[in-house]
Order: sequence, then C-alpha cells, then structure tokens
Amino acid sequence: MKNKKKLTIGLFGLGCVGGGLYEVLNRSSLIDAEIKTICIRDQNKKRTLSEYILTTDRYAILDDDEINVVVELIDDANAAYEIVSEALKRGKHVVTANKKMVAEHLDELIKLARKNEVSFLYEASVCGSIPVIRNLEEYYNNDSLSSVTGICNGTTNYILSQTNRGLTFAEALSKAQELGFAESDPTMDIDGYDSKFKLVLLIKHAFGITVQPDDIANTGIRNIKPQDLNYAAEKGYRVKLFSHAQKIGKHVLGMVAPYFVPETHFAYTVENEFNAIVVEALFSDKQLFIGKGAGSYPTASAVLSDIAALLFDYQYEYKKEQSVIDTFFTNDFSLDIYLGSSEGEIGLNELSFELEYTRFVSDEYAYKTGRVLFSELKAMDFNKKKHLFFAILPDASVGLSENPRITGAQKNKELIPG
Amino acid sequence: MKNKKKLTIGLFGLGCVGGGLYEVLNRSSLIDAEIKTICIRDQNKKRTLSEYILTTDRYAILDDDEINVVVELIDDANAAYEIVSEALKRGKHVVTANKKMVAEHLDELIKLARKNEVSFLYEASVCGSIPVIRNLEEYYNNDSLSSVTGICNGTTNYILSQTNRGLTFAEALSKAQELGFAESDPTMDIDGYDSKFKLVLLIKHAFGITVQPDDIANTGIRNIKPQDLNYAAEKGYRVKLFSHAQKIGKHVLGMVAPYFVPETHFAYTVENEFNAIVVEALFSDKQLFIGKGAGSYPTASAVLSDIAALLFDYQYEYKKEQSVIDTFFTNDFSLDIYLGSSEGEIGLNELSFELEYTRFVSDEYAYKTGRVLFSELKAMDFNKKKHLFFAILPDASVGLSENPRITGAQKNKELIPG
Ligand SMILES: NC(=O)c1ccc[n+]([C@@H]2O[C@H](COP(=O)([O-])OP(=O)(O)OC[C@H]3O[C@@H](n4cnc5c(N)ncnc54)[C@H](OP(=O)(O)O)[C@@H]3O)[C@@H](O)[C@H]2O)c1
Ligand SMILES: NC(=O)c1ccc[n+]([C@@H]2O[C@H](COP(=O)([O-])OP(=O)(O)OC[C@H]3O[C@@H](n4cnc5c(N)ncnc54)[C@H](OP(=O)(O)O)[C@@H]3O)[C@@H](O)[C@H]2O)c1
Repeated sequence: MKNKKKLTIGLFGLGCVGGGLYEVLNRSSLIDAEIKTICIRDQNKKRTLSEYILTTDRYAILDDDEINVVVELIDDANAAYEIVSEALKRGKHVVTANKKMVAEHLDELIKLARKNEVSFLYEASVCGSIPVIRNLEEYYNNDSLSSVTGICNGTTNYILSQTNRGLTFAEALSKAQELGFAESDPTMDIDGYDSKFKLVLLIKHAFGITVQPDDIANTGIRNIKPQDLNYAAEKGYRVKLFSHAQKIGKHVLGMVAPYFVPETHFAYTVENEFNAIVVEALFSDKQLFIGKGAGSYPTASAVLSDIAALLFDYQYEYKKEQSVIDTFFTNDFSLDIYLGSSEGEIGLNELSFELEYTRFVSDEYAYKTGRVLFSELKAMDFNKKKHLFFAILPDASVGLSENPRITGAQKNKELIPG
Repeated sequence: MKNKKKLTIGLFGLGCVGGGLYEVLNRSSLIDAEIKTICIRDQNKKRTLSEYILTTDRYAILDDDEINVVVELIDDANAAYEIVSEALKRGKHVVTANKKMVAEHLDELIKLARKNEVSFLYEASVCGSIPVIRNLEEYYNNDSLSSVTGICNGTTNYILSQTNRGLTFAEALSKAQELGFAESDPTMDIDGYDSKFKLVLLIKHAFGITVQPDDIANTGIRNIKPQDLNYAAEKGYRVKLFSHAQKIGKHVLGMVAPYFVPETHFAYTVENEFNAIVVEALFSDKQLFIGKGAGSYPTASAVLSDIAALLFDYQYEYKKEQSVIDTFFTNDFSLDIYLGSSEGEIGLNELSFELEYTRFVSDEYAYKTGRVLFSELKAMDFNKKKHLFFAILPDASVGLSENPRITGAQKNKELIPG
C-alpha cells in the first residue's frame, strides 16, 4: 500500500467546471481532500455556498502553506498561466483543465513541476471525461503508437451533426448557441483552435514531442457550404472535425481539419456533443474511446480523478520523451483532399494540386479532389477563405481505420505536379 | 521518479498469446524485462526459438530465485491455478490472461498476493487490448459507478454479426470455426461462460465485491433461431451478448445474456470480433471503449502493459472494497424479455411471466414479451433449452444508454402476475 496524505485544495474558478467540482467532491466519499479556499474574479456575484473562504486575492491561496494542491478552473488563460506557474514554484501540486494555457507553456510548466517535485495534471483539458491522457501515459507507454485521432471538440461535433442532417452552418451554429453548446464568440471552437490545443497535449503523451500550437495547421468548419455537404452526402460521408496525429518513421505529423468519413468509420456514429479518440498502436491494434468531452460534471469528474491520483503521488512521467531524440514534427507531406469553391475555378486554382482526381465546375459551385502539399494548404489559412472549404478524403477504411492517405513525411519529388 | 528494477521473467505457455508476447517483448525497446525460462507442455513440439531455456518442469521457474515475475499464459485453468498460487507464495509477481482461473480463485489469489507483497495483474484476461481493468481501478475509483456493460467475447460477437446478416446460428458457427474465431468445442464461448468469468472480474473492479461464477446466470446464443432473428430485424434490433452488471442502491446485479439492441445503442455498430465496454458513472456519464478482445498481439500487448507496470510496483488496490460492506449481489429482480419458442405456447408457458406485453402464436413458432423474475429465468438454464431463446429487451435508449428496464433488486410484490 502506498502512502496516503491529506489534500488541502485551493480552487481557482467557480463556474461551470469549478462549480461542478465543488458538488462532485462533496458527493464523493472515497476521497480525502478538502477545499479550503476558493478564488473567483467577481466579489459581488451571488453564490449559494457559504462554508468556504471566497476571495479575489490569488495570494490568499498561493501564500497559504497549508494548501498543497491548486486546482485551476478559470476561463482566462493568461491569468491561469501566472497562477499555475506561481503555484508550482511554491511546491504545490496543480490540476488544471485549461488546454490553451497548458499547450502554450507545456515544456516550461513540466520543467517547473519537475524542479519543484510536484505533480502537474491536466486530464480534464482533453476530451473531458475520457481518460485519454492517462491511458496514453500509462497504458500505451510500451506499445509503439502509430496514430491518435480524435473528435475533441463537442461544439463543432454538435454543429456538424446538425449540418449532416441538412441545416446550414449558420443555422446549426445558432442552434448550438441557443442550447449552450457554443459560446457567443465561437471562434476558438469552430476554427479548430480548441481542438489544436488538445492535439498538442495528445502529441506530447503519444509521441513524446512538444509542438508549438502555431506549427500545427488548424482549419475549422466555418466555411462549409450546402454544396460541400451535398457532395459528402452523395458519397455517403459525414463531415467530422478531427485532431489527428500520426507517426511515420521519425516524423510526426498532425493537424486539425475537417474529414470526410464513410459509414464504416467509427467516428461516423459519434454524434452531437460526444467526443471520441482512436489510438492506433503496433500491437494492441486500434482502441476507441467515446464519452462526454465537456459539461460541468463530466469535466469535473476528470478533475476529480486527477485529484484522487495525487493521493498516490501520481505524476506524468513522459516516458516517450526518452525515445524521441530524432523525432520531428513536420508539415511537409502530401495528402488527398476535397476542395470546394463558391468562386468557381478561380477559387480552386488558389491552391496548387500535385495530382488531380476529379473536377466539377458549374455556374454556382466548383470542386475538385486531388493531392496537395500540406505545407501549402497550411500557409493559406482556410479559416479566412470564405469562398473555400476543404476536407480530407477517407482512405478505403477497414474496420476502425481512419487514416487519410498520406504519402510521406517529406516532400515526395516523384509526384507529378497537378 | 519512482524506483526502477530489472524484471526477470519465467513464462508459462508459448501458444497464441505466449508466442505473441515473446515477439512483442523483443520488439519493444521501452521495457527493461527479460524472459529467462519458458515452460511448455510438450517437449517434442517444434519451436523456432533457441535462445531460451525451454522446460516442461514448472519448478525450473518456480524455484529459480532470480526470476521475479511469472507470466502465466497456458490454456489449462487447473494447472494455471497451481502455478500462479505457487508463484505468489514464492514472492514472485504474477501476470496472467486466464479469466477462468482468476474468476474461480479471485479472493484467495488476491489474499496470497497481499500476504507476499507482490503484484497480481490480469488486464489481458478481460477484453484483450482494452485497458478496462486498469481504468476501472485507477480512473473510476472516485466516481460512483452505476453500470458496466460489455461485449467481452469476440467469438459470439462474430457469430452474431453473421446471424444479424441472415446466416443461421449453425452456419455462422461453422464460418467462425473455419476462420479460427471459434474453437472446435465452442461451449465456453457460445454458452456465455467466458463472458461470465470476465464479468466476475469487471464486477470486482467496478463495485468491489467478489461474486462466485456459479451465482451469475449465463445464457449464450446457441439456441437462437431464424424466427428470433426475424423478430429482432423487424424491430430494427441487433442481437448482442452482453456481460452486464449494475448497482442499484446496495445491490449489484449481473448477468450474461443476449440483448436486443436498437440502432441508437452504441453496441449496435460493434461488429465481428471486436469487444466493447460501456462504463456508466454518476459524474463522468457514459464512457465507451472499443478494441480487439483477443488475438495474439492485442492480448500480448495487454500482458506487456502489465509487465511494464511492474517496473513501477503497480498493483491493484481494490479501493472499492472499502466502501461495500453492505453491498450484495442479487438475482432477485424483474426484467423485460422476449421469449421465443419452437414448441408453441407449451414452450412459452415453461417460464412464468409477471406481466405480459405481447404474444404471438403460429403453427411454427410462438413468442411473447413481458416481465419475468430473473431468479426463475436463471434456474431454468436456457443453454440447455433447445426449443427456447430469450433476449433482454432494450429500454427506450437515449444516446449511449444501454440498460435494460430492470425494476429493482428485490422481488417487487406489487407487480401483477402474468
Ligand atoms: N465548460 C466545460 O465544459 C469545459 C470542458 C473542458 C475544459 N474546460 C476548461 O475549464 C476552465 C473553466 O471553464 P468554465 O467553463 O468552468 O468557465 P466559466 O464557467 O466561465 O467559469 C470561469 C470561472 O473562473 C473565474 N475567474 C475568471 N478569471 C479569474 C481570475 N483571474 N481569478 C480568479 N477567478 C477567475 C470566474 O469567476 P467569477 O465566477 O467571479 O466570474 C468563474 O468562476 C477553462 O479553462 C475551460 O477551457 C471547460
Ligand atoms: N488466444 C487469445 O486471443 C486469448 C485472449 C485472451 C486471453 N487468452 C488466455 O490466454 C491463455 C493462453 O491462451 P492461448 O490462446 O495462447 O493458448 P494456446 O495457444 O492453446 O497455448 C497454450 C500454451 O500453454 C502451454 N501449456 C498448456 N498446459 C501447460 C502446462 N501444464 N504447463 C506448461 N505449459 C502448458 C502449451 O504448451 P505446448 O506449446 O507445449 O502445447 C501452449 O504453449 C488462456 O488462459 C486464454 O484464456 C487468450
């Protein structure tokens, strides 16, 4: 039996997730942990709880030596960074759900945690209740992983479930906003930033390397048009926004992009606000995890699992770091895409194709399919190209397979230019 | 960083899983573990490897003080029990994939491991490559679990995928045998014993209690008839064999039985030899895990994960045992089933119904749906009733929901007898 200790928590944030954690912790009898102080932003907001010290002064937590755990659940990534790094420096364990903050400061925060010999856990920041970080870290540590593919953003998956059923993007977005699945400024979600921050963390735990968010292309679903949806429907595809990374030899490639998925693909039936992750490994084959990616309780329960793990001195070990001295992230590869244009062929010609498979042009709309260099696609920033929409084409998929046909991690000079 | 040590392995069995482990371990660079001696049954069988000591004498491993890990991968549950208990008594860690052996001696082996302060791990014995035991043990330890439902047997799932497509049971079984998905004596699989042994382990890690295999009803798919499949198809259901357990108040109930699942159910698309597990919890909501449940590499990779965990002194803690002093397993509940009979109403009347919902009788076949007492159903041993087939009816399922309509853990006297 390992040594157990008492956890005294300083909680930052009492919103959707923080409020959920407060309840979940109160109703969970199996954990010896107590919230001592809660730091919020707005002193005057009405709250129902009275038994805790509420403060707006972060140092009421940071400078309290009795508090050995900081749980950071605020919605401000910059303040979160300051709080988390200060907490680690003071030798407090940190549990956070803030993917943006973690993705942007990953190596620095890992270093700080190691130096101060404390744990720094962030399971809740990727796919809410799905224990994907822990599984990548613990369970797949000795099996050569080849790819990780996830629906990591419930907002866009909800919107796409609606557009797959015939709504326009604008209609689906309003509906998502009405139901509270999308924020009033949905940019982070619909342009794929949220999915990208999560991908940075997935890549770290799957492949051992740290990628800067800027190095990963993120294209969202803002510019999807009825004609694109028609094309997909005719082929029997649904559109899904994937956070995808795969390892080819010494290279890791990764992206957030819309994918066309056929009915045989496991993601096909993952609808609405659900999240899903497929982990592909040399020996264990493919594993699929599905669950709620957000929401008060599901996210709080992931936070609680991290807190529980602290009782046993759990910390991420990033074991794969050791075996990746020569491993590099690259955007230098080709892949097969569909490109739709509401400005006819002029639009299509903005992106050069190495190979062209099909082309369709009418007065209203044009599309083509073919192979492109991913680095050129990344350079174009498709979120800003209102008249264009691209999606990655499916491979002929067998069982769980979900890989796009990617030819290699380096520019392949033998390909015939399109 | 935790203390690392060298693992010296004595391996029992070099068949499908043992042979897979040998390869997987050789190709995995991240683990500091070495197989020293391999014990097999048949000295004269041709083998390709030469670099290891092959023996038929189990004491060549058990009495070797240098060997600190026994990996047990033989196909004989009685011999496996002797080997594993002897190994634990000698202070060796044990990793096994033998669900029958573990389920039949669970408490005794846990006690032995605790007494001798060694680890006793068996992830590979439940759903092969899906890390379900580890997740129940580690990740869901603080969240009140309400149910676990799995497709835990690839053989029956393969057969059902075929019968769902129109083959008869006999045709589907032959096909499975030809393809190596079913053994020549398929009783363990098709009558639900294999699924039941796995359920014993799932219940232990989900709910903290040890149930004797005999206390769990297991009905398989041997007696499914074209008329039953027609009924299911007309309603839009597929038939799946579930290992299911749920907690209602202080009671745990569990069974292996055929279920009708509607299209909205996540198990609906889990086909062929795949396994799946849904874990439902108070806060984290529902989680679905899908992966390969058997096969040389997938199973070996689960064994390897257990071996890797030994490097960090990992052991199951069975934390939920502490909170279940008053929790009992029961078969005393009612639930809604479909009952089909190839001997008309006489067959139907063999089981008394508390409530009857529908009844159909023709010269050829009869069926009825309604509510029955599960204890009476268990007493009948449906595997032996050639003329009868039952399946549990789906609840109106929302999202991931997969629970049958079970009214309570105690006999409910208010129900009107059928
Ligand atoms: N919502 C989800 O489903 C979900 C899922 C996964 C991850 N996350 C992540 O969890 C975190 C919290 O999200 P949320 O949805 O719970 O946000 P939220 O509902 O908007 O709540 C934010 C909370 O943070 C507090 N706060 C903001 N700035 C602060 C500061 N500088 N110091 C102290 N407190 C501050 C706010 O205080 P006031 O109450 O005084 O305004 C509020 O209580 C974010 O990083 C988010 O990305 C959320
Ligand atoms: N196959 C799967 O996909 C799978 C999946 C999950 C769990 N499992 C479990 O893993 C275990 C092994 O299954 P398997 O499919 O690998 O079996 P298998 O292919 O039939 O191989 C059995 C091995 O055990 C050896 N053996 C049998 N009795 C022995 C004894 N008394 N002493 C020493 N060695 C003995 C055999 O020796 P010889 O080579 O000399 O005959 C053979 O090498 C079983 O418990 C099974 O339930 C299997």
